[in-house]
Amino acid sequence: MSIADLHAPPYYMVSFSSQRTEGDNGYGEMGYTMVELAKQQPGYLGFESARGADGFGILHSYWKDEESIRAWKAVVDHVEAQRRGRADWYARYEVRVALVQRAYGFDNEGI
Amino acid sequence: MSIADLHAPPYYMVSFSSQRTEGDNGYGEMGYTMVELAKQQPGYLGFESARGADGFGILHSYWKDEESIRAWKAVVDHVEAQRRGRADWYARYEVRVALVQRAYGFDNEGI
Repeated sequence: MSIADLHAPPYYMVSFSSQRTEGDNGYGEMGYTMVELAKQQPGYLGFESARGADGFGILHSYWKDEESIRAWKAVVDHVEAQRRGRADWYARYEVRVALVQRAYGFDNEGI
Repeated sequence: MSIADLHAPPYYMVSFSSQRTEGDNGYGEMGYTMVELAKQQPGYLGFESARGADGFGILHSYWKDEESIRAWKAVVDHVEAQRRGRADWYARYEVRVALVQRAYGFDNEGI
């Protein structure tokens, strides 16, 4: 995974903090499907994901506006409903929808 | 790490997405110091962190308002300046300051 290359703010972020259950249970395949679907959505700007060995992870998806996020949520709910209950993958999660107001960074990779 | 227990939005989030360099180079100690300092700051609400084996990580700190974030940034800059250049720890990072507008979750841990 790497840092999403985005235009200057404002833009929206959907943050997904979660504690995974034990075992894969189809999670890896679902994650791949979700990212591929997200990329096709209107208003999609980028994606970031990190998960530690303890099973705690944070995912970010970035969006142009709230309308894009609502449409994406409908897709997510549909995919999850097609497959299995959320309890199979997550012990707990929290979704936060936020408006990014400022951003700044550092790059030592010479890109 | 675990999910931060916060009151209902609105509140602010500082998201720090980063690619770590190889080796610790005092990073672990710095991280511990930073979190301890953050907890003492006015307006601090919570903290989350996840980093994968590939060195890509996402940290969230949560704050009451923008004034709290500005004060915290002054502390961060001071601590980093006291120690070593950012380039020792990070190949690249991006900081995003965002206003969390909505949040919802799921908890199967029975807490």
